[in-house]
Amino acid sequence: MNGKNPTACLLVIGNEVLSGRTQDANIRFLATGLGELGIPLREVRVIPDVPQTIIDTVNEVRAKFDYVFTTGGIGPTHDDITSECVAAAFGVPWEPHPEAWARMERAYKPGDFNAARQRMATMPRGASLIDNAMSVAPGFQIGNVYVMAGVPRVMQSMFEWLAPRLQGGAKIQQRAVHAIALPEGVIAEGLSAIQRRYPDLDIGSYPFYRPTGNGVTLVAKGTDLVSVEGAIAEITTLITQLGRTPIPGEPVA
Amino acid sequence: MNGKNPTACLLVIGNEVLSGRTQDANIRFLATGLGELGIPLREVRVIPDVPQTIIDTVNEVRAKFDYVFTTGGIGPTHDDITSECVAAAFGVPWEPHPEAWARMERAYKPGDFNAARQRMATMPRGASLIDNAMSVAPGFQIGNVYVMAGVPRVMQSMFEWLAPRLQGGAKIQQRAVHAIALPEGVIAEGLSAIQRRYPDLDIGSYPFYRPTGNGVTLVAKGTDLVSVEGAIAEITTLITQLGRTPIPGEPVA
Repeated sequence: MNGKNPTACLLVIGNEVLSGRTQDANIRFLATGLGELGIPLREVRVIPDVPQTIIDTVNEVRAKFDYVFTTGGIGPTHDDITSECVAAAFGVPWEPHPEAWARMERAYKPGDFNAARQRMATMPRGASLIDNAMSVAPGFQIGNVYVMAGVPRVMQSMFEWLAPRLQGGAKIQQRAVHAIALPEGVIAEGLSAIQRRYPDLDIGSYPFYRPTGNGVTLVAKGTDLVSVEGAIAEITTLITQLGRTPIPGEPVA
Repeated sequence: MNGKNPTACLLVIGNEVLSGRTQDANIRFLATGLGELGIPLREVRVIPDVPQTIIDTVNEVRAKFDYVFTTGGIGPTHDDITSECVAAAFGVPWEPHPEAWARMERAYKPGDFNAARQRMATMPRGASLIDNAMSVAPGFQIGNVYVMAGVPRVMQSMFEWLAPRLQGGAKIQQRAVHAIALPEGVIAEGLSAIQRRYPDLDIGSYPFYRPTGNGVTLVAKGTDLVSVEGAIAEITTLITQLGRTPIPGEPVA
């Protein structure tokens, strides 16, 4: 599917997700937000604060995907190295960004705009700013790479600013139906046949284990809502044929 | 750090995390569990149910890391293609695994071990089984690639079985201290100096925004507990010098 939609890759930069210290909260937010813009997220990489890893990964994925979003590593501390690594990836100088610098200098009391904070106003030459309502330090865009904060509410504010400025495609539509006490191994064959009849859709099967009963959720996704709803109608009929009660939507925990 | 520790990469395989339908629950569990075994997780990739993407990614990361773990895509439905893709990546036949087949055949009523379920007993030639307490369908290992379920409680049961069988290194030790109302831009310079004195540690700085107060958590990680605790002691002193009250451990929400 999504032959005509632009694609996106997300780089989650930072040791805290890789060490298990932090539960990632950015992947799902961006996956959902990008899907609504018709920019399906096609890959996520979580990588550590290692300069060569960041540089190589940025260069690999910016060639492969239409959009690259990064989260994390743009604060003032020594482990915040995303910005200088993106400059290195693009082969441009990492230098004070006049507008970011002026804004931040104004925001701090005299003497408080110290060397650490000045790093947050230092960017790859040619970068455009990404504003946000939470903090005076902006993110930035260079080429097809959008560099955002890692703190979820700052990132979300940056994405809110960014969203209307991105060129998306047809929105990815999703519909779901679920059934209790229906093993995947029982519905698999009929589901395969439906997937073959809707080659432009992604049809997925997700078992769940809930206090309210175990079962399976069937999801159809694609840009054509008529097809998505047609596939869900066929899956609904299939569930009935297998002697279970189809329940529209996602299961409730 | 971790010069002598084996490294790990996790592949989260499946469209459901990329579409935002599912909040990933496996990354943090495995990051933590692997850290305790002294096998630091160095990269995570979330990739879609696209055969060539899975094959290429498996081949890239199994050459780069000591251990590769995959989650997702080993069920009975048409979108479960991890197993056959891993066989293709290793260039070996994908065929019935005698032990898995026998176990599953025994577990189902006559006639219920259908073609869809037989796919779960079909594996790359030479695979060893990974048992679990939740389901009769096993995961498997081939080379340095460990293929596990995507459903968190099945994956966790597989990892529990696997953990004592993995060759780890020195455990990654972590200690933290935090402070309220301490901007990162204020502690950054002193923190850099401490990081320079402990080049074998990863020292990280993570701002937080909580109803109980905004602040920053400082984390030191490494295999040498004496160094980790030494760095935290220096950071604690630094916080005091900056006029804030150091609070050991992670902040409470």
